[in-house]
Amino acid sequence: MPKMKSMEDLFYGLLQDVYYAEKQLLKALPKMAKNATSPELEKAFLQHRDETETQVERLEKAFEMIGKTAKGKKCEAIIGLVEEGEEVIKEAEDDDVRDAGIVGAAQAVEHYEIARYGTMIAWARQLGMNDAASLLEQTLEQEYNADRLLTELAEGRLNREAA
Amino acid sequence: MPKMKSMEDLFYGLLQDVYYAEKQLLKALPKMAKNATSPELEKAFLQHRDETETQVERLEKAFEMIGKTAKGKKCEAIIGLVEEGEEVIKEAEDDDVRDAGIVGAAQAVEHYEIARYGTMIAWARQLGMNDAASLLEQTLEQEYNADRLLTELAEGRLNREAA
Repeated sequence: MPKMKSMEDLFYGLLQDVYYAEKQLLKALPKMAKNATSPELEKAFLQHRDETETQVERLEKAFEMIGKTAKGKKCEAIIGLVEEGEEVIKEAEDDDVRDAGIVGAAQAVEHYEIARYGTMIAWARQLGMNDAASLLEQTLEQEYNADRLLTELAEGRLNREAA
Repeated sequence: MPKMKSMEDLFYGLLQDVYYAEKQLLKALPKMAKNATSPELEKAFLQHRDETETQVERLEKAFEMIGKTAKGKKCEAIIGLVEEGEEVIKEAEDDDVRDAGIVGAAQAVEHYEIARYGTMIAWARQLGMNDAASLLEQTLEQEYNADRLLTELAEGRLNREAA
């Protein structure tokens, strides 16, 4: 178990967590897209999958900035969050109900990322790593936008169709 | 495995998830308080523990409103999120570093709840269950406040002390 003695250690640990999480999402998002019935929702997941590739690259740059090799650390939170999405896909017996359920699960993932990037950015700024902070802010903005788009899809149509 | 045929089923399923999650947090928050070094952080966790008791009662009322018995459904996401907090407690070898790490983990939990209550409220409104929606909105407001307080503590002092 890695010992954390400094905020640099904390930052490095969280970077590894989030790197693992984004890699899991690269696999989960196409599955969510495949199980979505609404074409807009499918498109939103595929688009966010592409964004996630860029986000992985940004994390790799952040590893470089602290002179470390990019590697992931198993993160139980993302495993559980992805599992919630898989459960709703399995349990839903109606296409519209499944879409509404997948959106909810995906928004829980987005919020996880919003929290973790928010923390990483605050720590980077505290450590004087403003370049890393600015880089990660680009990702945080994308996560906020992804969450907003899902809310719009849900409240604009998907929830009404499921009800 | 329960089958979900309607948005009512989805709502009931999520209510059970979140009920399980809040009960886990009733156990996790005192542990986080005990491991916090900053008195303000300890106080924030204990205060949120008390709020969580009220939130459990609100969920029980929501179960009543839909004519169901309150029961939890194992939620892997919260298990993983709580585990992240336990890990940082174990790994941190410095009190200030531990405090900064616990705050980060707690904010991931808050964001999980913000996402799930947001979804439940949207579904309740769609189902015409305005009383349930208003009830759960009180909890959502508390989760936002708890997250905001943690940000203030972190950015106001804890991160600086950890760095």
